[in-house]
Amino acid sequence: MYRSVLAVLVAIFLWCAPVLAQTNSTATDDSAIRVVLAKQAVDWNSGDLDAFATGYKNSPDILFIGSKISRGYSQMLERYHTVYSTREKMGTLTYSDIEIQPLDEHFATVTGKFHLERTAAGGGEASGSYLLVFEKTAQGWKIVRDVTIPAAKQ
Amino acid sequence: MYRSVLAVLVAIFLWCAPVLAQTNSTATDDSAIRVVLAKQAVDWNSGDLDAFATGYKNSPDILFIGSKISRGYSQMLERYHTVYSTREKMGTLTYSDIEIQPLDEHFATVTGKFHLERTAAGGGEASGSYLLVFEKTAQGWKIVRDVTIPAAKQ
Repeated sequence: MYRSVLAVLVAIFLWCAPVLAQTNSTATDDSAIRVVLAKQAVDWNSGDLDAFATGYKNSPDILFIGSKISRGYSQMLERYHTVYSTREKMGTLTYSDIEIQPLDEHFATVTGKFHLERTAAGGGEASGSYLLVFEKTAQGWKIVRDVTIPAAKQ
Repeated sequence: MYRSVLAVLVAIFLWCAPVLAQTNSTATDDSAIRVVLAKQAVDWNSGDLDAFATGYKNSPDILFIGSKISRGYSQMLERYHTVYSTREKMGTLTYSDIEIQPLDEHFATVTGKFHLERTAAGGGEASGSYLLVFEKTAQGWKIVRDVTIPAAKQ
């Protein structure tokens, strides 16, 4: 009798284990992705573009869609340094309404809004929404696709 | 001597096989994704919204970002039937500049442009660009994320 109960308990555990593991993994991944975005905002707001950029995967394949399509980590970094050449042009970045949807254990998409608090001389305030594709790399979760949709000017 | 040459050839084959297999798989996936998009355009242009919708994964988790964020297959279908309630409102759809980037063997992102040829009464011409995330499901490659960026009105 005792053995039967034990066998049933083991069977239930084995049946549930993958589900439990996935739930834990997803919660951990969700937190890890939020940490990447939080760190990006901190890096941006301390004027450190090189640190901010490490939220992206260091690959020539990463892709950005804004007013036009561009690719590659080094090209992105160069563009950031050109467009945000002074602290005033960088302003203060905040992310909000972050929602994470896993695709599988290696990829997830993230949607949210951004706001750039900025002086008129710096370029004025800017905001909009985005969709990011994150990949779980050997170096942690990194952005591999970035679509940014600017909000209509108010 | 013959055996050594054979061993080297086998070694080279074994070394290359995964690469060759991956190339073939990627080319097949690329074609399969292009077929989904081509079929969507044909279905749209024959006025069959239900067939067009089958390019998307039938899941409540699929996500759309346009002027706002929305989710779910059935909600998408309902919205399409509301917005494109007549053949004239649907116009003629063409996709162009399609570029496919695999994420892994299960997911790929696609960028491209769309154009809706339409009478003024139907709502006028519309165009823009998009990023789609495709998933290789048991039913074939299906769209699971859709970001559409309308071009600025001319």
